[in-house]
Amino acid sequence: MTLDRTHDVHTRSWLASANASDGDFPIQNLPFGVFRRAGSQEAFRGGVAIGDQVIDLQAAAGSGAFTGLAGQALQAASHSALNALMAMGPEAWHALRLALFDALADGATGPAADALRGALVPQAQAEMGLPSRIGDYTDFYTSVHHALNVGRVLKPDDPLTPNFRWLPIAYHGRASSVVPSGTAFHRPMGQAMGPGAAAPQYGPCRRLDYELEMGFYVGPGNAQGRPIAIGEAESHIFGMCLLNDWSARDHQFWEMAPLGPFLGKNFCTSVSPWVVTMAALAPYRVPFTRPADEPQSLAYLDSAANREAGGVDVQLEVRLQSPRHRAAGHAGDRLSATSFRHQYWTLAQMVAQHTVGGCNLQPGDLLGTGTISGPTPGEAGAIVELSRGGTQTVDLPATGETRTFLEDGDTVILRGWCARDGRARIGFGECRGEVLPAVG
Amino acid sequence: MTLDRTHDVHTRSWLASANASDGDFPIQNLPFGVFRRAGSQEAFRGGVAIGDQVIDLQAAAGSGAFTGLAGQALQAASHSALNALMAMGPEAWHALRLALFDALADGATGPAADALRGALVPQAQAEMGLPSRIGDYTDFYTSVHHALNVGRVLKPDDPLTPNFRWLPIAYHGRASSVVPSGTAFHRPMGQAMGPGAAAPQYGPCRRLDYELEMGFYVGPGNAQGRPIAIGEAESHIFGMCLLNDWSARDHQFWEMAPLGPFLGKNFCTSVSPWVVTMAALAPYRVPFTRPADEPQSLAYLDSAANREAGGVDVQLEVRLQSPRHRAAGHAGDRLSATSFRHQYWTLAQMVAQHTVGGCNLQPGDLLGTGTISGPTPGEAGAIVELSRGGTQTVDLPATGETRTFLEDGDTVILRGWCARDGRARIGFGECRGEVLPAVG
Repeated sequence: MTLDRTHDVHTRSWLASANASDGDFPIQNLPFGVFRRAGSQEAFRGGVAIGDQVIDLQAAAGSGAFTGLAGQALQAASHSALNALMAMGPEAWHALRLALFDALADGATGPAADALRGALVPQAQAEMGLPSRIGDYTDFYTSVHHALNVGRVLKPDDPLTPNFRWLPIAYHGRASSVVPSGTAFHRPMGQAMGPGAAAPQYGPCRRLDYELEMGFYVGPGNAQGRPIAIGEAESHIFGMCLLNDWSARDHQFWEMAPLGPFLGKNFCTSVSPWVVTMAALAPYRVPFTRPADEPQSLAYLDSAANREAGGVDVQLEVRLQSPRHRAAGHAGDRLSATSFRHQYWTLAQMVAQHTVGGCNLQPGDLLGTGTISGPTPGEAGAIVELSRGGTQTVDLPATGETRTFLEDGDTVILRGWCARDGRARIGFGECRGEVLPAVG
Repeated sequence: MTLDRTHDVHTRSWLASANASDGDFPIQNLPFGVFRRAGSQEAFRGGVAIGDQVIDLQAAAGSGAFTGLAGQALQAASHSALNALMAMGPEAWHALRLALFDALADGATGPAADALRGALVPQAQAEMGLPSRIGDYTDFYTSVHHALNVGRVLKPDDPLTPNFRWLPIAYHGRASSVVPSGTAFHRPMGQAMGPGAAAPQYGPCRRLDYELEMGFYVGPGNAQGRPIAIGEAESHIFGMCLLNDWSARDHQFWEMAPLGPFLGKNFCTSVSPWVVTMAALAPYRVPFTRPADEPQSLAYLDSAANREAGGVDVQLEVRLQSPRHRAAGHAGDRLSATSFRHQYWTLAQMVAQHTVGGCNLQPGDLLGTGTISGPTPGEAGAIVELSRGGTQTVDLPATGETRTFLEDGDTVILRGWCARDGRARIGFGECRGEVLPAVG
């Protein structure tokens, strides 16, 4: 990932709201999503977030002010999902990023800048949709701290399965139930087996959890039977988002032997609406290292570039806003905070592993990282870890409430951002969802 | 499932090839698929198999000879995938079935019969595509005999997980790598851990297997958060096919703790091209019973209709054709034969379970039954069962070869049919695939 003028922290935009030092969407970010005017029945169309506005990419494309490869990419980004843009690959993405950056920069004049000035819609008036038509959704399990936290609850003496340090574990998730941030869902019904019970009980989930994850969208992808080598993997990643893989722990633990999670995970998965491109994240890439006494990556999962800059330093936090918080106008208590840099496997390794047997990835497919937990207890990415399997309460100081699992009416809010002195802040916005009572 | 004139065994077609007593596609069957002329670059379009011909549904729709609900269903079936037809539901499916049946019956005259006479394409000249754009693919695990056979290899003392008799176990599969019968695939590369080894090895799969399954396609489906009750489940099933869930056992066994199969299953899944409708299968429904000393279904998985006729008596067989068989012009040795009637859970129970937590099924989604094995050793639906985990050889009498797992160049052929005295034979055709050498 090379740095270029789009990463220059000193460049400001003619749009004042883009220049706030604590904003998620400065001119150096330019994340993509799809939107329509809230309350309308308009078709969804591509948009780019800048400051407190959305650039309507369909309007921008219609202006004819963008030409060449950037113009083609803009056209591809103007539909109701971004699959066509994602399919174009890094050269086209780069051309469009440069063109948008230049036209948004302070002092920009000419048809492109005029077109963008005429294509702004306030984010407060936008309803966001799913960024892509997701063909398949895969969820990985790449945080060793999460795996250890969960494993210690289930098997204290042997918390980590032997394969964990050798390959990025994953399972196939459910694409149809991925929803954009802000979509509420009903507490799921299902079977659970109580400790010592002779028969399972059918009823509402009693151990409802969230999972702090990041997601990433596939770019061009590969043909079936043609794996993506690790050295090529990053060119197949369009960008990243926040992801909450809501989990019904009681249902999951009863159903998952021997074939893995099913109903425990497929009732709802929430994603943040803005996809932050890998280009925007370039200043925040960090080395990927393994402790010397642990297995090093097999050759097909190893590359110099991956070792040098395979990680991404994204700051993450989870908040819980109960009905009482909401009634008091409070944004919710922070349950945990961590960074994505602690992951045991990188995005490139996940892509290489996913395809090594010949499985085909398609533009717009969604891959999740698995729950992201850091090395200390306050960095755990799921409430089952914070409450040690429901045996300890988690405090909500602002309201004096406690939780072991989620209750009806609770809203969980994920936030993520990259920030460091001398670099532009790159924000992900938020991913939120509310638990509605069970229907059943 | 009520019987009507379309199930009358005495009705013959004006198309002579449809009247062969051992044919898969008599007038009482009328399975749906998508096709184009082999070797052409035409768009795929809907078709119905009759005798040795395909009815081109786009041509039939274009004739204007079919009106009303049948005409609308025909229009929906004329596209490059059958999702729109599947979405219409049983009333429309029934109207189209009646209209096609009447126009194909011996002695039929008038514009509809003329339109079908003009819309015939020989099956020998047709290239078949995937019947639907599959949004999500789910694979169940509903044969107790398969679960016991596999479980005895892994855990002789405790072969069945405690949840097996309480719910139809399932996992999410990979939709992108589902291919139509006849598509060859490369032996997958991946990691496997040898017995007693200190580190896994990366290389070509050494324990490649097939899985004899049936698949079924979702009809109208449900909104997220709105489960399909078991009493309604059958109206959400369009029809059934043969399915081979190719499996890399060495990769699978290494990777699958704790989240289930991933690369071991996602390199290729083959389906037969013709979807046999639930209406065509109505004469072959059989009671669904449980031994009295085993857990009976919980209320949400139970209904009188399901007990009376939840099963389907489909005869199934697996053949293996090695390169030597092929060189000798031999169709391959039969490895096993069984019936779908032995399953521990029904299609309706699978639909009810899949949606009970709120997961949404969409028109065209594919659900697999899991490997189908019958109660005796010769009825096992995977070679890992026949070879007892690779410890015994399986004979191929026609060539004098043996197998423990699949070798490069092997073709596996699944066939299925319903047949009983006094009823029309309802065939599924075949599902075949060839193993190509690894690329790596």
